[in-house]
Amino acid sequence: MIAEIISIGTELLMGQVLDTNAQFLSRRLSALGVTHQRRSTVGDNPVRLKETYAAALGRADVLITSGGLGPTGDDITKSVLAELLEEPLVVREDALARLKERFSRMNRVMPESNIVQAAFTKDSIILPNENGTAPGAIVPCDRFGAGKIVIHLPGPPAELEAMFDASVAPYLQKRSGSALVSRYIRIFGMGESEAETRVKDLTQGSNPTLSPYCSPGEVMLRATALCSCPSEGAAMLAPLVSKVRDRLGDVVYAVEETDGGSLAKTVIALLIDKHQTLSVAESVTGGMLSSMLVSVPGASRVYAGGFITYMNERKEAFTGVRHETLTRYGAVSEPCAIQMAEGALLRAGTDIAVSVTGCAGPDSDERNTPVGQVFAGVAVRGRAYAKALRLTGSRQHIRALACLHALNLVRMELIKGDASALNE
Amino acid sequence: MIAEIISIGTELLMGQVLDTNAQFLSRRLSALGVTHQRRSTVGDNPVRLKETYAAALGRADVLITSGGLGPTGDDITKSVLAELLEEPLVVREDALARLKERFSRMNRVMPESNIVQAAFTKDSIILPNENGTAPGAIVPCDRFGAGKIVIHLPGPPAELEAMFDASVAPYLQKRSGSALVSRYIRIFGMGESEAETRVKDLTQGSNPTLSPYCSPGEVMLRATALCSCPSEGAAMLAPLVSKVRDRLGDVVYAVEETDGGSLAKTVIALLIDKHQTLSVAESVTGGMLSSMLVSVPGASRVYAGGFITYMNERKEAFTGVRHETLTRYGAVSEPCAIQMAEGALLRAGTDIAVSVTGCAGPDSDERNTPVGQVFAGVAVRGRAYAKALRLTGSRQHIRALACLHALNLVRMELIKGDASALNE
Repeated sequence: MIAEIISIGTELLMGQVLDTNAQFLSRRLSALGVTHQRRSTVGDNPVRLKETYAAALGRADVLITSGGLGPTGDDITKSVLAELLEEPLVVREDALARLKERFSRMNRVMPESNIVQAAFTKDSIILPNENGTAPGAIVPCDRFGAGKIVIHLPGPPAELEAMFDASVAPYLQKRSGSALVSRYIRIFGMGESEAETRVKDLTQGSNPTLSPYCSPGEVMLRATALCSCPSEGAAMLAPLVSKVRDRLGDVVYAVEETDGGSLAKTVIALLIDKHQTLSVAESVTGGMLSSMLVSVPGASRVYAGGFITYMNERKEAFTGVRHETLTRYGAVSEPCAIQMAEGALLRAGTDIAVSVTGCAGPDSDERNTPVGQVFAGVAVRGRAYAKALRLTGSRQHIRALACLHALNLVRMELIKGDASALNE
Repeated sequence: MIAEIISIGTELLMGQVLDTNAQFLSRRLSALGVTHQRRSTVGDNPVRLKETYAAALGRADVLITSGGLGPTGDDITKSVLAELLEEPLVVREDALARLKERFSRMNRVMPESNIVQAAFTKDSIILPNENGTAPGAIVPCDRFGAGKIVIHLPGPPAELEAMFDASVAPYLQKRSGSALVSRYIRIFGMGESEAETRVKDLTQGSNPTLSPYCSPGEVMLRATALCSCPSEGAAMLAPLVSKVRDRLGDVVYAVEETDGGSLAKTVIALLIDKHQTLSVAESVTGGMLSSMLVSVPGASRVYAGGFITYMNERKEAFTGVRHETLTRYGAVSEPCAIQMAEGALLRAGTDIAVSVTGCAGPDSDERNTPVGQVFAGVAVRGRAYAKALRLTGSRQHIRALACLHALNLVRMELIKGDASALNE
């Protein structure tokens, strides 16, 4: 089964909107084992859209469109295809009823112009939209070849993603008669090439497969089984995932069924599991580390908060860093990181505290600390330590990497009881 | 002049990489006044790439490719075009010398495989790459029509963006014989439709033009003049920008020559200008507000840091919120926001302090505070106030909007001396 994606909307060509839908659909098609060879982006122009439809239907079995299902004159996705198929768009009473009901739930009367959102060619399968007004559709296009279809999805990402997962993925799986089940193996603390070398022989298999899966600033592996049902897939994947864990050890911080994990999520889950509380003292990261923790729903059960000591003198005032530590070693130093963590532990009254201090650039500080020099510290009752890091990249990238390293120190402390013994 | 973009790389079709290059190029083409009607994405497949080149060269004057200029067998961008043009790729000694020099600066010997990066068809204009090894090129394709060209750019965004701005933009401007000069007018505190209504008549002009420019969570207008040189453009734009400022008032927080501003940048600049220092007390935003401030280089001159009081009892401990305030009004309340700001002001010893407390969901808190209820507070010596907000969207979106509202309160305090008098 060969698929193509057509992203529709002049706002995409103007660069006003970043096409995250195309990436979402590409990942899902790849996870479903559907071959995806081309993607086209066109504006709200009937002539060019028609040409694009015709060319793509000549090549592919399944076309997926995103956007252009709204009620205005610019929304031509359905009508241009109907014209190409030489079939009229007919208002479907079931879809119209759902649309009217949606408006009445919002205490609004449906404008006349929205009726067009309930109109489809006659054999279309209508896909309900849980997050917006525009229904999607699976439109048979047999005149271009037996079994060929176009799948219309709405443009807003929340609507498109929910509709794909609820209606399109099961349809495509059923059609192909098989299922693809995956495990996402998330890694921190080992480079991509090192990780790949250690599992190289495991990546040679044809079913299940194991392959690197890129994500900015992260290393991930994906194990995927082609199978007849999810439980069979789970059974096929378990021994492979177990081998990967054996080869890589503690750098594997999560194994999940979907691509939605993060180090912060793992840390919050570990804290809950072990009944521990956490606080932070941040300098160079300036709240970014805390914000990552707070982005996890439920964080307030175990994450207390902390201190942002951006100006040096606040390191003394907020976290009790000693004045002579700052004058002797500077703010970007191991002793300062340790004292920041100790101060947060004491003042926030948590079981663990983590600190970050460093220089993210663009310029060195007044002590000529090199850009990218960072120290992350951890304190627990009776014990504290810090790790020196040399990070590279832009100011934002250095800050983000520093947060991930700090989160990983907390993770190692939680699973080992002493992350200070860690090798690099 | 009609342009098309071709994004090349199997990693794009697999969804491993989000195509931010396409958005960057689209925005730049639009700013340069170049018509851009289609975009294609293809993998590292010679047959499909050749078809895509031929079809696009049939329609457009300028094709811009991104990706596939590396030294490996997968990198086919130049060779497939050369084949279509029936011209050989020839190693260019100037490009080879620069490439070798780059490797020697990194203390590495250039691998033999990299020589191909210095090979181009004979009339190509080579574009230097300041941030990587792969040079770009402007390749004449007159056999498809007089003056037609293909512009090859490297895939990594930092390399592509710098090369476009340094080499491609001036080339396209020179070719079109005119310049486009823009001003980006950034707005906070007024909805898009309200802002558009107030300047509607100004958007009818043909040169200079004024049009809405979408950016997630923000409202922006772009004024653009088609002119013969930048100084002429500046003179054409000044009266238009001045009229927009008159119509919209204080909601205009920045007018800039490029699309790179932010509320945090404006706030840091105002603080520096007015010799004031700032601290924060964050609950629901959990460090995100602080992180936005720290993302501005030079923030440490005026931004002290602050307190993350994520668990309720830390609101008392860190910022001195009174216990009875929490029991009587709850943590998501006007009195709590005011006391958080007052506490940060006192304990951080700054001229201004800003606070945020609220409920971002996914669930209501134990007092049944509705998701999206947020209070932002400001304290200066002798005076404090808070603003109630009702925000909608996902947990992350509510948190980000809360940060922007808090930053805007600080901005208004700095320009007016009392933002509490503001109307909604």
